[in-house]
Amino acid sequence: MSNVLKKDQFILPEGVVYLDGNSLGPMPKSVPARVAGVMEEEWAQLLIRGWNKAGWMAMPSKVGDAVGRLVGAPEGSVVMGDTLSIKVYQALAAALKMRPERRVILSDTGNFPSDLYMAEGLVGLLDKGYELRKVAPEAVAEAITEEVAVVMLTEVDYRTGRKHDMKVITELAHAAGAVMVWDLAHTAGALPVDLTGANCEFAVGCTYKYLNGGPGAPAFIYVRPDLAEAAEPALAGWLGHRAPFDFDLDYRPGRGIERMRVGTPPILQMAALEEAMKLWEGVDMAELRAASVALQEQFIAEVEAEVPGLELASPRDSAVRGSQVSFRFAHGYEAMQALIDRGVIGDFRAPDIMRFGFTPLYLEAADVSRAVAILREVMVEELWRAEEYQVRNAVT
Amino acid sequence: MSNVLKKDQFILPEGVVYLDGNSLGPMPKSVPARVAGVMEEEWAQLLIRGWNKAGWMAMPSKVGDAVGRLVGAPEGSVVMGDTLSIKVYQALAAALKMRPERRVILSDTGNFPSDLYMAEGLVGLLDKGYELRKVAPEAVAEAITEEVAVVMLTEVDYRTGRKHDMKVITELAHAAGAVMVWDLAHTAGALPVDLTGANCEFAVGCTYKYLNGGPGAPAFIYVRPDLAEAAEPALAGWLGHRAPFDFDLDYRPGRGIERMRVGTPPILQMAALEEAMKLWEGVDMAELRAASVALQEQFIAEVEAEVPGLELASPRDSAVRGSQVSFRFAHGYEAMQALIDRGVIGDFRAPDIMRFGFTPLYLEAADVSRAVAILREVMVEELWRAEEYQVRNAVT
Repeated sequence: MSNVLKKDQFILPEGVVYLDGNSLGPMPKSVPARVAGVMEEEWAQLLIRGWNKAGWMAMPSKVGDAVGRLVGAPEGSVVMGDTLSIKVYQALAAALKMRPERRVILSDTGNFPSDLYMAEGLVGLLDKGYELRKVAPEAVAEAITEEVAVVMLTEVDYRTGRKHDMKVITELAHAAGAVMVWDLAHTAGALPVDLTGANCEFAVGCTYKYLNGGPGAPAFIYVRPDLAEAAEPALAGWLGHRAPFDFDLDYRPGRGIERMRVGTPPILQMAALEEAMKLWEGVDMAELRAASVALQEQFIAEVEAEVPGLELASPRDSAVRGSQVSFRFAHGYEAMQALIDRGVIGDFRAPDIMRFGFTPLYLEAADVSRAVAILREVMVEELWRAEEYQVRNAVT
Repeated sequence: MSNVLKKDQFILPEGVVYLDGNSLGPMPKSVPARVAGVMEEEWAQLLIRGWNKAGWMAMPSKVGDAVGRLVGAPEGSVVMGDTLSIKVYQALAAALKMRPERRVILSDTGNFPSDLYMAEGLVGLLDKGYELRKVAPEAVAEAITEEVAVVMLTEVDYRTGRKHDMKVITELAHAAGAVMVWDLAHTAGALPVDLTGANCEFAVGCTYKYLNGGPGAPAFIYVRPDLAEAAEPALAGWLGHRAPFDFDLDYRPGRGIERMRVGTPPILQMAALEEAMKLWEGVDMAELRAASVALQEQFIAEVEAEVPGLELASPRDSAVRGSQVSFRFAHGYEAMQALIDRGVIGDFRAPDIMRFGFTPLYLEAADVSRAVAILREVMVEELWRAEEYQVRNAVT
């Protein structure tokens, strides 16, 4: 699967096997020069003129199109900005407005907590009898009833990697008259996605994981093109206005997806992301997916053959698994610290999940074997028992 | 006033007099190295560990304290993130919750449109008979009645520089039982502010103008310390959760101002801003204000003595003017383009305002005289009549 391997285009620290690109992607080599150029040649030299002359104002749409190409969204249907939490809120608020007679937001307990919190915040603000209904991931299909206004799910579970079937669930939602919102946080850049084919109304996602946009890179939002002019922006910011520089006193939503812009976009982060997106040119997502599955299958097989004490937490069937493999271990937090100290970087999710992300742009079979060998050492020799690993930090 | 002049610490393009620091501040010289360091040494080398080991997770609070020191806010009462529009929304939503029995948001027609739009979006979402009432800036005081839930104003008018009296209006708001939200977009880094003394409940602002944080730098929000634990976050993001890494399914607001965090902070922009904030160490805001007023008075006197055709749009009394001077001219758009082409960068605000910002960190008397001489040439020789200046662009 060497067609997708672009390891030489990333900075990867000496001696590290990085299995946490599903949390924060590594830095593409060309990013620092691009960001430096934006600072030294654009901000410093053009000053305010950068908004027009350096094309800053158009970046949220231009980068949005680059992200859109990876997730099967047509040109002009994706825009970048803010954080994923904000984009979830925008999608959800607009979706609820489309079903004013219904009161249930359906999600699952495998959704990323921030999505649930944003929904909870919106429900509390509206204070009109809305209910955020959380069911087990396996119970979603049967919970889609005609009470449901919006089904809001993350395709790939951040803990186990379990994958929903976007097309099937979207069809169930539509059959019940509900609006579908997909969070692609663990999907974009990891799995082939066909948003047009999935037919969902909204999709959102982040770009600092598999898209390697850097810490705090801007999020994206997709609105199905036939609805873009109907979606009502709850976060009605001036850059989502039809004519921001008229400085009208009243809001008129911008054309299509542009209305999902809010405030002034973060240009340094946009530039870093735009540069990182260049790595995707020519990458076939089906090929990338095949490479990811091969790495994951190798990892599972080697761990199960060589490493004692770990229990697979991810689905065994790769067809219903994203681009990560998780194992349960009661002392997973401590074991992950020991592993990281030995150069194998994964992460831990409470209460007992050791999580490993597989990113074929910069990982190959030899990395997987090396990671397993070190994991084996940590587990066989119980290196995680060392005192230094017994205190949990805030971020892992 | 040379105590505040730090011109050698900024990159200012050869031949430019920059009078648009009230829109986008110029680049401090030390910013590129800092941002490069974050990319090369932190993101690239620490990868996910940067959140703890490089202190990324704490940056919104740490930088918030640096901004807080400039606006008279105690430590732990300001946090950075998102854009100003989002912070307006957060403050307004929390403020409305504090007066559930009232339905009027009072603002003025001199407020920045995005603030009005965000309020309009919130009113539309709530759909409970809320009203956004916009009066003329001069009519605000008498419009503060007991119907008003929240008074939401920008201290300094983005067009004319007219300045509200924060203390007086806040007192009127409180006397009527209303909650006060101040937008300090054109205040922070330009005027002395004493948030504690003003006693307002909420304040918000941006950092890419007078604070020189770069295009799209993060915004800030202040919550009065006695209310920080009572304010209900409408945008309930996971980094505003009491224990984000517990990944609870239910939201519990974080401690104090931390609950106003939402999603993953933009670390490159945070670092640029943190570096830019170092320029404020040792700056006395009263001295800076005196220097700004001196530059503005010089500009007004010289323009009125030497430049025909311009009418002062800003208050003549510097006590009620921010850190900018605006002139009206029917062909102001065209004249501003002609001026910018000759190295004097101000900006234009529809329908007829030529706007000039005064920033004593990098401007001195000689710059003002030079700007006036070129402005005089543009006006006397009617250089703005050239064909190339007759087409309006999106951003000016």
